[in-house]
Amino acid sequence: MDHLKETTLTSKEIFKGRIIDLYLEEVKLPNGNTSTREIVKHPGAVAVIAVTPENKILMVEQYRKPLGRTIVEIPAGKLEKGEKPIITAKRELEEETGYTCEDLKPLISFYTSPGFADELVHLFITENLEKMTEAAELDEDEFVEVLEVTLEEAQEMIQNNKIYDAKTAYAVQYLLLKEALKK
Amino acid sequence: MDHLKETTLTSKEIFKGRIIDLYLEEVKLPNGNTSTREIVKHPGAVAVIAVTPENKILMVEQYRKPLGRTIVEIPAGKLEKGEKPIITAKRELEEETGYTCEDLKPLISFYTSPGFADELVHLFITENLEKMTEAAELDEDEFVEVLEVTLEEAQEMIQNNKIYDAKTAYAVQYLLLKEALKK
Repeated sequence: MDHLKETTLTSKEIFKGRIIDLYLEEVKLPNGNTSTREIVKHPGAVAVIAVTPENKILMVEQYRKPLGRTIVEIPAGKLEKGEKPIITAKRELEEETGYTCEDLKPLISFYTSPGFADELVHLFITENLEKMTEAAELDEDEFVEVLEVTLEEAQEMIQNNKIYDAKTAYAVQYLLLKEALKK
Repeated sequence: MDHLKETTLTSKEIFKGRIIDLYLEEVKLPNGNTSTREIVKHPGAVAVIAVTPENKILMVEQYRKPLGRTIVEIPAGKLEKGEKPIITAKRELEEETGYTCEDLKPLISFYTSPGFADELVHLFITENLEKMTEAAELDEDEFVEVLEVTLEEAQEMIQNNKIYDAKTAYAVQYLLLKEALKK
């Protein structure tokens, strides 16, 4: 679809942060006109659908400063430079939940906000969790509460906006679809 | 979950753009330490699952500058200031696809990137589309290609990364679940 392409005329670094960078670009549009694009660069992230032997989904509640509130999410975290997503996924699972596993399977990857950011989330699933004897340590600016919820409870949490993010909504729907296809 | 709360110590505006603003905040963590948060403010967005009488899903292919490529998405767009999401959803559907409808139903809302942005996407669905005699006009910096795809084609497009974003992956899974529950 080359006739839809936008060409970069200028690219200006506005901000270089710990997690995101911001660029302001001037682009040439398909019709020859120019416009500006505000672009957030992000290292990418992972998220894990983790189902316990008791058929509970592992969730973490954490305060999200951009939202000014806590929400409940599946375990997730951002990629370290050069790290393979599956390695990050296992580490985040261990750090955030105190569970580990040997068989993380890649499920799907998706961009979260293609209009203004390049964040790509890699979603994994495991149903073979093992409780760790010693919990891994969280990042020093990370505080979470681990929850184990049933699929029904997760659906309720979507209704009352406790679960309120795309990857977790996708995860809950994935498990609902899996259950529906079993019948 | 007040014990997880982060308190704003300082907030500095880094950038005020056409679509996003960027703030750098110093926060007090639950344990009393301080950290910084990079926060993107976004007006919010809408997206529409639109199914034609022939049971095709309306999709738009467009170039996404942050990704440096085109991807295929359900019709979507950002909220204008003070605009009700359902009004935006109808307008974006008309502008991007040339179809209109009278019965948009709200399905779910979710944050796309709660770690660094406050973008909230409101997802709607309609199965009563009507072709417009005269197409509505796109924004002057917007160029899209309309596609009508079956659910099977949409699944293939996820496999080969043509569909590659969270809201559209959610939409396809929603329709799969709906079909599975019918049986």
